Amino acid sequence: MTAAADTVTVPLPELRKTVYAALSRAGCDHENADAVAAVMAAADGDGCASHGVFRLAGYLASLKSGKVDGKARPSVTSLAPAVVKIDGRGGFAPLVMKAARDALAPLARGQGIAAATLVNVHHFSALWVDVEPLVETGLAAMCFTAYMPSVAPAGARKPFFGTNPMAFGWPRADGGTLIFDQASAAMARGEIMIAAREGHTVPLGTGIDKAGNQTTDPKEILQGAQLPFGGYKGSSLAMMVELLAAGLIGQPFSFEAGEEDNRDGGPPRGGVLLLAMDPQKFGDAEGWLQHSETFLKRLSRLDDVRLPGARRAANRARIAREGATLPAKLWKDAINAG
Amino acid sequence: MTAAADTVTVPLPELRKTVYAALSRAGCDHENADAVAAVMAAADGDGCASHGVFRLAGYLASLKSGKVDGKARPSVTSLAPAVVKIDGRGGFAPLVMKAARDALAPLARGQGIAAATLVNVHHFSALWVDVEPLVETGLAAMCFTAYMPSVAPAGARKPFFGTNPMAFGWPRADGGTLIFDQASAAMARGEIMIAAREGHTVPLGTGIDKAGNQTTDPKEILQGAQLPFGGYKGSSLAMMVELLAAGLIGQPFSFEAGEEDNRDGGPPRGGVLLLAMDPQKFGDAEGWLQHSETFLKRLSRLDDVRLPGARRAANRARIAREGATLPAKLWKDAINAG
Repeated sequence: MTAAADTVTVPLPELRKTVYAALSRAGCDHENADAVAAVMAAADGDGCASHGVFRLAGYLASLKSGKVDGKARPSVTSLAPAVVKIDGRGGFAPLVMKAARDALAPLARGQGIAAATLVNVHHFSALWVDVEPLVETGLAAMCFTAYMPSVAPAGARKPFFGTNPMAFGWPRADGGTLIFDQASAAMARGEIMIAAREGHTVPLGTGIDKAGNQTTDPKEILQGAQLPFGGYKGSSLAMMVELLAAGLIGQPFSFEAGEEDNRDGGPPRGGVLLLAMDPQKFGDAEGWLQHSETFLKRLSRLDDVRLPGARRAANRARIAREGATLPAKLWKDAINAG
Repeated sequence: MTAAADTVTVPLPELRKTVYAALSRAGCDHENADAVAAVMAAADGDGCASHGVFRLAGYLASLKSGKVDGKARPSVTSLAPAVVKIDGRGGFAPLVMKAARDALAPLARGQGIAAATLVNVHHFSALWVDVEPLVETGLAAMCFTAYMPSVAPAGARKPFFGTNPMAFGWPRADGGTLIFDQASAAMARGEIMIAAREGHTVPLGTGIDKAGNQTTDPKEILQGAQLPFGGYKGSSLAMMVELLAAGLIGQPFSFEAGEEDNRDGGPPRGGVLLLAMDPQKFGDAEGWLQHSETFLKRLSRLDDVRLPGARRAANRARIAREGATLPAKLWKDAINAG
């Protein structure tokens, strides 16, 4: 561990071990602590500070309040030939997502397309981490989850939608993945929280204050409302995510999660919808992979185009070598937490 | 038919009959002319001028050039238990979409989720018209299609993506539908073409000129490139649409359609991906409909929020009563066309 000014640089194995220990002390059993720690280390390992150790305090608070069961085991039920339900039984998402991937992958290969509904789960991580292992097996995937009221629908001045990310993943010829994971909000809530903590402003269009006026002050936005990206089109996508991750699968809409949640700072109870498609079963089994590679190569050669996830991939190689740089106080708190 | 200045108001049955006759004279058989005319009348009937009679010249040009077969009959092949392929055999989309809906609906009800791939089809209409009959049967639906190079990816200055619309539809308790149908481009290409024809400007952010500079001149944008909505996030969605409607199903990417197409002004050969989910099979068969209605009612009561499709619904009632208002020259050309 090396330190520079008020930051520290932590090797990822140490980061993961420290987070695991804190979660264990706070009441997670081995499987849950291990799955959550892996997801947080993956986020910091990809340079996504908003979903790494930064989230530990929220995870711990929701264990302490009793909202989340750190020893939960997901159960799997078939709902239809191409639909499987994973009941998280009040646990954190990472172990539930693993059960969902394990159930969904063979289903998608058999049926061509299949869906997993995740219910009674507390989701607090990045979606790309959840989707990546599925895409690495050669499946295309889409994933949707709602949250708590954070985003004002286009035309409104109060939070109603969650930040409502959707992720899409596509297999690459080298065994890697192309994944985007983007909030329906103009900016991820975690990034706004970090800007507030560090005293930075955020771009106009990120959100509005309590009176409904646009502002660049992240603290005002956290008290007011975030805005969807791209105006009414982003707002439509946020609505779609609510209907898929809540309406379709019998889970709380963001506005209901906001009413139900105990506000301990951790993730609310909610649902996730995960879809998988086997490109071998869509009519171009021999050609789809090279055909898509041609497209992606043409795309990445254009001017200043960067493929989604390219920055994460660059970060991943560097941070695996050098370790993750964290605020010193955040890291000290992690060591002492739980 | 009544006239005001340089516009005419045409009852929808007359509009549909006139378009049907023009398509028949140009070589469509009854089934194809009827299906295309229905889709165009539906667009003008919902106040969507960019996809109504405005498109007739393009349809006719592609019959005349021999690019599209006006007598094509789609064929249906099972690819997997939950995936069906509809080969359009070089025909216009409307008849192919009908075959896809007919094959997909029972599959989605049986499997829970299912997909239809539409291949060798010439798509020139609005997606919401294609999706609506499926959603009226109680299924949730998603639909994606690519086009020809029109949109510069985020960071680029040349067209590469198509306008790449995606549609999402959700069944309502009154038997109606909630549907959004939105281009990944900031503005639908048809709307830019109409602005160019009528000499209007378009908002900044709609597109760039040939040199890569933002402009409000629709003619410059049609020569240059459209921009995605919402910056890099809309660009990611446009990429997803390419991978789903081309890469996954063995159809031309927009850049390939641009190289292959004969530029007769009609729609290129391409693919469509249509997904359907039966909400009765996702774990909340008793509750999903009322639960979602509660959400949508809360959403529509917020400040100035308008649900997607609300304007179309209002237009539909009015235009069914009053007829569609069209430029007089467009209507005269339609009467004499084919």
